[in-house]
Amino acid sequence: MHEPILLQIAIMLAAAKLGGELCERWLKQPAVLGEIVFGVLAGQSVFGWVQGDSLTLQQIAEIGAVLLLFEVGLESDLEDLFKVGLAATWVAVAGVALPFLMGFFVARGLGHPPIQSLFVGAALTATSVGITARVFSDLNALHTKEAKIVLGAAVVDDVIGLIILAAVSGLAASKAVSWLAVAKLTLMAYLFLAGALILGLRATPLLLHWARRMRTRAAVPSVAVIFCLLLATLAETAQLAPIVGAFAAGLVLAKTEHKVHFEEQVKSIADIFVPIFFVMMGARMNLQVFDPTTAAGRTTLTIGGLLFVVALIGKVLGGLSVPGRGTKRWTVGIGMIPRGEVGLIFASIGLSKHVINDALYAAIILVVILTTFITPPLLKLAASRPGPKGGVQPAQRPESPLQATGEPLAETP
Amino acid sequence: MHEPILLQIAIMLAAAKLGGELCERWLKQPAVLGEIVFGVLAGQSVFGWVQGDSLTLQQIAEIGAVLLLFEVGLESDLEDLFKVGLAATWVAVAGVALPFLMGFFVARGLGHPPIQSLFVGAALTATSVGITARVFSDLNALHTKEAKIVLGAAVVDDVIGLIILAAVSGLAASKAVSWLAVAKLTLMAYLFLAGALILGLRATPLLLHWARRMRTRAAVPSVAVIFCLLLATLAETAQLAPIVGAFAAGLVLAKTEHKVHFEEQVKSIADIFVPIFFVMMGARMNLQVFDPTTAAGRTTLTIGGLLFVVALIGKVLGGLSVPGRGTKRWTVGIGMIPRGEVGLIFASIGLSKHVINDALYAAIILVVILTTFITPPLLKLAASRPGPKGGVQPAQRPESPLQATGEPLAETP
Repeated sequence: MHEPILLQIAIMLAAAKLGGELCERWLKQPAVLGEIVFGVLAGQSVFGWVQGDSLTLQQIAEIGAVLLLFEVGLESDLEDLFKVGLAATWVAVAGVALPFLMGFFVARGLGHPPIQSLFVGAALTATSVGITARVFSDLNALHTKEAKIVLGAAVVDDVIGLIILAAVSGLAASKAVSWLAVAKLTLMAYLFLAGALILGLRATPLLLHWARRMRTRAAVPSVAVIFCLLLATLAETAQLAPIVGAFAAGLVLAKTEHKVHFEEQVKSIADIFVPIFFVMMGARMNLQVFDPTTAAGRTTLTIGGLLFVVALIGKVLGGLSVPGRGTKRWTVGIGMIPRGEVGLIFASIGLSKHVINDALYAAIILVVILTTFITPPLLKLAASRPGPKGGVQPAQRPESPLQATGEPLAETP
Repeated sequence: MHEPILLQIAIMLAAAKLGGELCERWLKQPAVLGEIVFGVLAGQSVFGWVQGDSLTLQQIAEIGAVLLLFEVGLESDLEDLFKVGLAATWVAVAGVALPFLMGFFVARGLGHPPIQSLFVGAALTATSVGITARVFSDLNALHTKEAKIVLGAAVVDDVIGLIILAAVSGLAASKAVSWLAVAKLTLMAYLFLAGALILGLRATPLLLHWARRMRTRAAVPSVAVIFCLLLATLAETAQLAPIVGAFAAGLVLAKTEHKVHFEEQVKSIADIFVPIFFVMMGARMNLQVFDPTTAAGRTTLTIGGLLFVVALIGKVLGGLSVPGRGTKRWTVGIGMIPRGEVGLIFASIGLSKHVINDALYAAIILVVILTTFITPPLLKLAASRPGPKGGVQPAQRPESPLQATGEPLAETP
């Protein structure tokens, strides 16, 4: 009658827990890496148990991504983010400019025409903050300065990515860059962010106060989830990533005194849906396009490998250049490496407009895959080294013993 | 790019909480009634904010139904269910036979041919336990004997419905009833139920023991959810409703000592998804087919009204005939009233095989809608009256003060 969605969710959850356990216990790696790898195994490339192209599963996975960034926002502090605002903006700008330029020149060097090369460069610019946020969370390092810089930079980065997409798409349509459109998009993005924070900070205490007085079951967590979903939708309307809206919602709700009344419930839901997002990320990967026994596979591997190197170097250099002392620069640089949806969206727009060809498209997918796999181990390595000023070590945080044993926090008496 | 799923979920949650609050606070009715009514408002019949025909939303709603019955199973006791086994079977058989016969004769009386009338009768047989379970839960009455009889009867009922569907579909295909197919389906259903309980009771303590020793986050609730989804899928494979599998999973897991380690988390997730199921139930209703200003609408209302009356009387008589003393017979009878998916599935199979016409189809939908709306207030009325032997009153249960104030249980220090 319909695709067996319940079974596939069960498989995804099982893959997430087995992969996560393997990574945490034996490989001493963040659980998210195992979730993605087992997602690849469960997906189309290997066993085919999970349909990576199922719209329903993709949308359920998107709910997972939204809940992840909502949870991360809830654990972050708006003032702390503003404190690192300058550093985050710097990291974002440098981390966009360097991969863009380097990607452009690599594509030009391989003989691709300028517009095509611009698209390639643009596709390498936007950091996908999901992986990094999850690794920081796995390491109990969300409260560190580096985590805040990366999260702030990822938001700025998303706004810049939006502008570049508008500009490059205009060029691809053989028109001049429409500066009006670019200005309009930028304005909308900033209006959204400022509006969400300013109105949100005023409205949410009132909303939650009403919710607490409601008799119907679970009103407070429901209102929190509704607020998160509304801001995610608004962000999408402003052409930003929905997860930026979810993050903003988390930041706003973190400031209310009612936070204690819904945080555990939101965590419980996220605990189930976030792993589904990462398994799906793996399941959607089609590794066949990199088959080195075919000519097409070899071309993809060559171009993709080169682009991966510049994508890596570009972001790491951007992170290393962060101003201010006492910051683990490598952690920031590595934290910015992952590319995700935005890069794929660029690539697929380029493909559908016939600006880039199949080989370049596959190469960009390779960059997304490689940056996804390389970030968790590298980030763990960088984050666990002592900082230049002896920054907070993850293991010293009070929650860590509980989380490390895998016990849900809700059990605490 | 795709339908705004996040926004629609936000709207559904908001509708659920507003409708639920309205019902609980001012109308003193179970919250579920308000969720369905506000679902109708948000759906295609009125505002059109929620797409009732969205496959993704339907599947997310199905997850809600599965979680509801899982939660109900977790709060039930297998031995208690077996104790009322005979009564439940009686209620199921009587509650299937009476509406079937009465529906058949009403359709015959209105001049419909025998096969068509058989389909109409069959569509009135299966109780949809979701509404009743939710009302018992809203009233904190899941632990009463009446709740156990209704839940047990609904499981038996589902097996009988499966058999009738096989028999009547065979007749409709102008073949003889294939008694072999009927026997095979019955056997599979019982094999599933027995297998799920026997194997589940042995396997789950081991599974959960392993899960508790896992380091990865939220392993215990994840394993519980995986088990629930697997049994729901298995039930579907055995052609039973997925919720029967979820209920069995809850029953099995309720027996393990590890229950405390995942129950709150499962509740937190259910708190968000269950209301989505009921709002969706409302949103999918198309009230336009009952427009009394059209001739078709009047026909539907007449046939549907007659069928509703026999559907109601049939189940209530079935419940009133329950053997044994000290049972609130009216509560059992009213608890069996709601018809749902199974009736709609019968009707749509009949429609697609051209056995029944549009008017009969719409009339069956009307029965589903009316039984849905009438059950919560009637059931509340029946359940709150003192029982023949002074059965347990809902308000005396320890949880009720907490739930009545709308505070999530997770907050309890």
